[in-house]
Amino acid sequence: MRPVAVVGVGKTRFGAFPDRGLRSLAVEAGEKCLKNGHVSPSQVDCFFLGNFAGPSFVGQNHLAPYVSTALGIRDVPATRIEAACASSGSAFFHAFSAVAAGLYDSVLVVGVEKMTSQTTARTTEILAGAGDCSGEIKAGSTFPSLFAMIARRHMYQFGTTREHLAAVAVKNHANGVLNPDAHMRKAITMEQALNGRSVAEPLGLYDCSLISDGAAAVLVMPADKARDFTPKPVRILGTAQASDFVALDQKPDITTFPALRRAAQKAYEMARVGPKDIQFAEVHDCFTIAEIVAIEDLGFVERGHGGPFEASGLAARTGERPINASGGLKSKGHPVGATGVGQICDIVAQIRCEAGDMQLKRNSLGLAQNLGGSGATCVVTILGNA
Amino acid sequence: MRPVAVVGVGKTRFGAFPDRGLRSLAVEAGEKCLKNGHVSPSQVDCFFLGNFAGPSFVGQNHLAPYVSTALGIRDVPATRIEAACASSGSAFFHAFSAVAAGLYDSVLVVGVEKMTSQTTARTTEILAGAGDCSGEIKAGSTFPSLFAMIARRHMYQFGTTREHLAAVAVKNHANGVLNPDAHMRKAITMEQALNGRSVAEPLGLYDCSLISDGAAAVLVMPADKARDFTPKPVRILGTAQASDFVALDQKPDITTFPALRRAAQKAYEMARVGPKDIQFAEVHDCFTIAEIVAIEDLGFVERGHGGPFEASGLAARTGERPINASGGLKSKGHPVGATGVGQICDIVAQIRCEAGDMQLKRNSLGLAQNLGGSGATCVVTILGNA
Repeated sequence: MRPVAVVGVGKTRFGAFPDRGLRSLAVEAGEKCLKNGHVSPSQVDCFFLGNFAGPSFVGQNHLAPYVSTALGIRDVPATRIEAACASSGSAFFHAFSAVAAGLYDSVLVVGVEKMTSQTTARTTEILAGAGDCSGEIKAGSTFPSLFAMIARRHMYQFGTTREHLAAVAVKNHANGVLNPDAHMRKAITMEQALNGRSVAEPLGLYDCSLISDGAAAVLVMPADKARDFTPKPVRILGTAQASDFVALDQKPDITTFPALRRAAQKAYEMARVGPKDIQFAEVHDCFTIAEIVAIEDLGFVERGHGGPFEASGLAARTGERPINASGGLKSKGHPVGATGVGQICDIVAQIRCEAGDMQLKRNSLGLAQNLGGSGATCVVTILGNA
Repeated sequence: MRPVAVVGVGKTRFGAFPDRGLRSLAVEAGEKCLKNGHVSPSQVDCFFLGNFAGPSFVGQNHLAPYVSTALGIRDVPATRIEAACASSGSAFFHAFSAVAAGLYDSVLVVGVEKMTSQTTARTTEILAGAGDCSGEIKAGSTFPSLFAMIARRHMYQFGTTREHLAAVAVKNHANGVLNPDAHMRKAITMEQALNGRSVAEPLGLYDCSLISDGAAAVLVMPADKARDFTPKPVRILGTAQASDFVALDQKPDITTFPALRRAAQKAYEMARVGPKDIQFAEVHDCFTIAEIVAIEDLGFVERGHGGPFEASGLAARTGERPINASGGLKSKGHPVGATGVGQICDIVAQIRCEAGDMQLKRNSLGLAQNLGGSGATCVVTILGNA
């Protein structure tokens, strides 16, 4: 296994862009990434596209060559990966693996989703496709209701409160104000967070991430070639993908995600670091409760301690372990297929000291955690100075 | 790169199964494959699912863990790959690559599609998602019409005739009669083939492959471990995936598929064989003209000679180079996401001398060619005695 580095990153703004199509967003991110890495399209020898539901949102399938050829990439394998909200995290994992194993020397990964062209009802239905449609979804669940059940159980089991959840929202909204590419740059108070319109009790409006359009891209190479292209390569120290049941009702305990724990364990082992070493993280806060479960399953805090950790300010950008300094899915936005690679871009920007107003002081070892569905897929990646 | 072998194969029947769901089909193929390879679910260390349009056909996304957990496979990376009609060919390519590079020791690939639960109009619309929806499809094209344009141009440029196309249909229907798992076991005459209801001139009913439900699975391992599991491992001598424009109108010449030529060239180089060495092949006859273009682009015949080769009987199971002895997509059926892996299963059955009534005499070196859309993705695989 060769050491692997990120050579280039590129993102669109996340938001609602009625005049932009899926391909236009993907191409913008891909071109920015190639430019950032000083790599030409003809130097790319493998292409992965992470996308959750392009066929359902915009009617287009066969998405990898649809995007790669528009970037000027021809001939090479161009493959779409779908893993619900972890689609581009998974694409990144496979890109890393292929470069580490010596299959390719230059792999471009683009994640994209164009979500805002559908009605809310249809969008909810498309997103529900990431759950088990023969069971929980058929029975009437939607993703807010699945995570509401997780929140309720977490409250019952560990004493987590609505204030704990709201603290996640307040923090991530505050962080998003500093992110020029965020979908929603709007600070909220604890009172607002607690009094948002109810979506699925106990989750209110401010507990839910955003429906967004957007794309993100990352280019990976063997570490020993990376410096030929960029003065600022960032090492991929560890990455792992793991899987579990899609249906929540098949899980013995819904307050923890075994796939998250397994992916984290493997990523830590590969990187030869532990949870205590991680200085900052981008975690998958599709709902506020998901951030609390994530920091527990990542081992940043003990089980049941996620809520108090958030409420105490320790996860703030000025705290001991900043979580979602980008604003997270909650404020930055959650264009599903772009989210995993977008997190990698955010971590890379921090490590390169290119995060602008979002820049953290302790920035040499960061972690990204990307979740699919209610935990059936998880990808954890650890990045550090090359 | 380690030598890699197929250890197990498994398929469902292809057909219209109103009482079967996507997962049920995928699990049947996967379980048969594990049993065939004498491998337990816990021995699988990576899972790929090839599926084109499950979300559109049956409303279910996040398909890899949805299927893998039902097979008893947990924790390991479970990833869906979508590459239009080459979805499971691509999944197989990535599985081979990962094993060859040493990333995993035991990878299960399942291809599946459940197509017959939708109306014909909706099915046509879903399949059109494999074309360019912002161009050719928006302008009114469907896949039969795209391949009709290819056929017309082939006729104009090379003198290919309706009789040449019909010869492909007659041969593949005759072969399908011998395949107990084929969707349509019905011999047709040349007269019938020529007089099928018009679909998109010059293509008639018998020039088009079938809308089918079905699944297929293959398990790959390093060649040196394969004999611990099966007395009949089959070597993967070469495999390659290549890409090109999705839209037909972006191609300078629509009578040849550069991605097919590129994938074939790379697969031949890897296998250290040439087109003349290939004894039999399963090619992607989504339309009769596609088989003619395929045998030309694979180098079995010169450009423009595909039609006469078919009409002369040389591609028959008794001919010098049997093509689609299984009946092909035309007669065996074309459950899109299952087709690529299904072809691998058919080649493996021949090489193992387990093809029953379909068994060919010259059976030691076979090739599978799986096409996505009108040529934007192509995977070519060469298999031989281990």
